[in-house]
Amino acid sequence: MELNKPTLYTCFSPALLDLYTVNDAVVVIIDVLRATSTITTALYNGAKCVIPVDSVARCIELGKQIDGITAGERDGKIAEGLSYGNSPFEYPREFVQGKTLVLTTTNGTKLLHMALERGAKEIITGSFPNLSAVCDYLVEKKLPVILGCAAWKDRVNMEDMLFAGAVINRIKENFSINCDSSQVAETMYQTAIDDLFGFMQQKGASHYHRLMGFGLEKDIRYCLEADGANVLPLYQEGKLIVY
Amino acid sequence: MELNKPTLYTCFSPALLDLYTVNDAVVVIIDVLRATSTITTALYNGAKCVIPVDSVARCIELGKQIDGITAGERDGKIAEGLSYGNSPFEYPREFVQGKTLVLTTTNGTKLLHMALERGAKEIITGSFPNLSAVCDYLVEKKLPVILGCAAWKDRVNMEDMLFAGAVINRIKENFSINCDSSQVAETMYQTAIDDLFGFMQQKGASHYHRLMGFGLEKDIRYCLEADGANVLPLYQEGKLIVY
Repeated sequence: MELNKPTLYTCFSPALLDLYTVNDAVVVIIDVLRATSTITTALYNGAKCVIPVDSVARCIELGKQIDGITAGERDGKIAEGLSYGNSPFEYPREFVQGKTLVLTTTNGTKLLHMALERGAKEIITGSFPNLSAVCDYLVEKKLPVILGCAAWKDRVNMEDMLFAGAVINRIKENFSINCDSSQVAETMYQTAIDDLFGFMQQKGASHYHRLMGFGLEKDIRYCLEADGANVLPLYQEGKLIVY
Repeated sequence: MELNKPTLYTCFSPALLDLYTVNDAVVVIIDVLRATSTITTALYNGAKCVIPVDSVARCIELGKQIDGITAGERDGKIAEGLSYGNSPFEYPREFVQGKTLVLTTTNGTKLLHMALERGAKEIITGSFPNLSAVCDYLVEKKLPVILGCAAWKDRVNMEDMLFAGAVINRIKENFSINCDSSQVAETMYQTAIDDLFGFMQQKGASHYHRLMGFGLEKDIRYCLEADGANVLPLYQEGKLIVY
């Protein structure tokens, strides 16, 4: 009954988003290193919500208004004027519980706002730490799916593709997939499955090297591990909350 | 001496071309199924030149002016008003020798014109039938390289990626490569290397199915075979000629 299954597409870059119909779809925002890993971690650890904003100025302004934690990065480092960065390890339960995180990042929050502007039916965020939650949700909803890779300044990256591949690998039987990008993502994931960290290292993934240069191996390892913070961030009325 | 090597990037879609600097680079136009396979085949079989044009109307007009063969497709079929299509088998030596082909296609000729407009230093075309000629040229020139996948209406496709991967697999030691797309392309090629046709079939590549639906298995098999028409099409003054 292939025809009755909802479609699933993978979009490798925000610059390609306009090729896909988002109005009837769940758009999964994927920014594995590190925005969407951090979002699910903060929510898993009890944050009230995460408010994604598209500029540092807006982050500071809103943070003041609502007494939220201002957080975010530009080019992989804490952005000037913000209090915290984009590492999941900055948001343990004892710090983040009950609080609101206002977050801006180079790629992930940008893609989220693009999906929003284009009228996505639903927006959720995906990362290895919440892989199972994402897969369960997509199977449950039975809606068309766009796996949206945040990429790096519009350039395709390996880690977001690997996560898209992991999702496809788990739930492909539930969807009709006629999309080379999805086939590529799943093939890459199958090749890397035994050791994602080692694969990224061996292949010289650009963002792997960028973060390793900042001494963030611990972050990378955490962000490539499945189900460490397994909740589903769902976007509603300007906020990411736990579904 | 990594720093002294020229850079190499892979661009998966015309919609991503603006992310890359083409002014100092050789841009390799890749449209494996079938434009660039057909171009190298026509030239290998003695065509005087191939003139890529971006519309059917321009193809008809120019074909009349210069008494050329009007050829091209839209959506995988011979375009209305043109005499020939986009199959390499339409251009055997006894037909094409000494003649000029005026060609328009859905993706490949479009990307070529984009690269031209953006001021690419050099433009060549690549496909499995001229894999070795492309690799030899790139190594010889020692210029930065952009492997430009024509894709399918801006959507990433598998076959152009596989060809980019084949090139990278052969010449990577000569270039400095910090580009996840290139790593992905090479990984895909390494996975598929033993049987490209079988891989495309097994993975359900979308263009594979499109052409199989038109009864073009023979075309696909030819277009995935290395060095069947091993010349180098170089763009000069509006024409693709043999280098």
